[in-house]
Amino acid sequence: MLFSRGVTKIKALIVDKGTVELRDTPVPRPDPDRDEILIRVKKAGICSTDFEVIEGMINFSGVLGHEFVGVVENDPSGGLEGKRVVGEINIPCWECSRCQKNQYKHCLNIETLGMRRRDGVFAEFLTLPRSNVHLVPKSITDNEAVFTEPLAAAVEIAEQYHLKPSEPITIIGDGRLGLVTARALWGMGYSIEVIGRHQDKLATLDLPGITAHLEADFPAEKHTDLPVVIEASGSTSGLEKALQLTAPRGKIIYKTTTAQSHEINLADLAIDEIQLLGSRCGPFAPALNLLARNDLHLEELITAEYSLDEAKLALKKAAQKSSLKVILKP
Amino acid sequence: MLFSRGVTKIKALIVDKGTVELRDTPVPRPDPDRDEILIRVKKAGICSTDFEVIEGMINFSGVLGHEFVGVVENDPSGGLEGKRVVGEINIPCWECSRCQKNQYKHCLNIETLGMRRRDGVFAEFLTLPRSNVHLVPKSITDNEAVFTEPLAAAVEIAEQYHLKPSEPITIIGDGRLGLVTARALWGMGYSIEVIGRHQDKLATLDLPGITAHLEADFPAEKHTDLPVVIEASGSTSGLEKALQLTAPRGKIIYKTTTAQSHEINLADLAIDEIQLLGSRCGPFAPALNLLARNDLHLEELITAEYSLDEAKLALKKAAQKSSLKVILKP
Repeated sequence: MLFSRGVTKIKALIVDKGTVELRDTPVPRPDPDRDEILIRVKKAGICSTDFEVIEGMINFSGVLGHEFVGVVENDPSGGLEGKRVVGEINIPCWECSRCQKNQYKHCLNIETLGMRRRDGVFAEFLTLPRSNVHLVPKSITDNEAVFTEPLAAAVEIAEQYHLKPSEPITIIGDGRLGLVTARALWGMGYSIEVIGRHQDKLATLDLPGITAHLEADFPAEKHTDLPVVIEASGSTSGLEKALQLTAPRGKIIYKTTTAQSHEINLADLAIDEIQLLGSRCGPFAPALNLLARNDLHLEELITAEYSLDEAKLALKKAAQKSSLKVILKP
Repeated sequence: MLFSRGVTKIKALIVDKGTVELRDTPVPRPDPDRDEILIRVKKAGICSTDFEVIEGMINFSGVLGHEFVGVVENDPSGGLEGKRVVGEINIPCWECSRCQKNQYKHCLNIETLGMRRRDGVFAEFLTLPRSNVHLVPKSITDNEAVFTEPLAAAVEIAEQYHLKPSEPITIIGDGRLGLVTARALWGMGYSIEVIGRHQDKLATLDLPGITAHLEADFPAEKHTDLPVVIEASGSTSGLEKALQLTAPRGKIIYKTTTAQSHEINLADLAIDEIQLLGSRCGPFAPALNLLARNDLHLEELITAEYSLDEAKLALKKAAQKSSLKVILKP
């Protein structure tokens, strides 16, 4: 037990007013009133949203990071100690008007790991309410389990909107989001097409049923009439291309939470009666079911792994255009 | 019969390379291969889209206008002569890949009255294929029937998307589009709220079950959590306000076909998982059913009526901020 061993400080990567530094910080204490447990982080993943937090686009001070796999260090009510777990990143208040409508993910007082009012996972330890935690089956490696959160965000698309098995899905963007989304929906049986700008990243999609196109070889034309397009590039040109490629009455899934303004012409949305559908975080249980099949090979998307001591180097690596997933190991 | 009376020219308001002029033009001849009929225009309505055509945002040369009620002057196959009719504005080719998927409104070779490859209705006569024409029941006045096309565009929202009777609908915009949409959806039993900027226009909504708000009295706040918002203002601020007011997982219906670019931040669309749903022209039959009940009182939205000879004056009037529907009478 951490506390009984007299440990009082842990290392954590902390964002504070535009700076990001590795610091010693008090051991987080599970709040018994909220049925919290203490988790030791085994591996954590760096996500594009982490850079938005660093750049101040999301107003947050505290421990950065939200993607992780860990082991329960302390469970005050017992039962989970020693178990390997992943954790949902949103903690609702259970009481506001939205929670009362079961819209927990949109809670008015939401806490989000490493983003809103809640310390994140780029640390040796974190606390989470028991109800946020999911056990990781033995068959899933740490390097796969660390992808549970982004994988769940991809599963969310099918959770929210009816995707027909007969309709191919086109993903614009070959970054972390695009490649994880491609594998997730491929794992759910859909026929997947990815349009990207990086031959090496597209080359990671060597799975039967996924077709990868360099954007230059897939010119944006009206009347391509794709039924479902997922905008996963995060760029204005990605959304414009989606509007050009999508069929009348087709769906564009919009995953970009970047707080940037776009100069965009939406007339085609009305003229072609397109549906632009927002989508965010998703359910962990079906994501873990997909991972347990061991055929998504998300581990292949790991570019590099760094110790927590090298966290700033890891961030630098993750910010490089050529990088996919960068892992931190406390 | 027009032809047998030796009439060869008719008056028509013609758009040509940025100019708009009343001109004499040959009597249009119904094409028997397309089962066309000749219609004498009784009344025509000026729509905001007509100004986009004049300004060249829609590339078109020919007779302007698409909203009308008329009387069949000549039906080569007989049966319709003397009947009062309205006409759907889109004429599909019935052969392209989209028509083969029953997406006639999105036909690749579409002709649209006064907009694409087809002379419009600001003229003494027009031709239309028989399948575009709907008989107008006697109980509907000309001043109501001339609203069939914009009313159908409002009905289209319910045709495309599931609007729950229990969910109030908020319309942003008190122009022609907003006010017709409000009455249409009110006529379908929904609880309607309109947010506008013009006390006099909002005052036309004196129907039990419609609430009108001046925008200044209805500040845009996060967490208002409206389930369904219709953006009918055509402005960037309207869409921004819609994004602020709409509940997580709520629907925004997007009706603006204006070919303008907006500087807009769509992050909230993903974060709140909002659906931005495009919508355009709609079905005439249910619109006529609504009109036949004689309780929408769309006639009250008519600001002025002009003869076709005064067409340019009429356009000037319709362009004024204070105007609602301006009618042309050939």
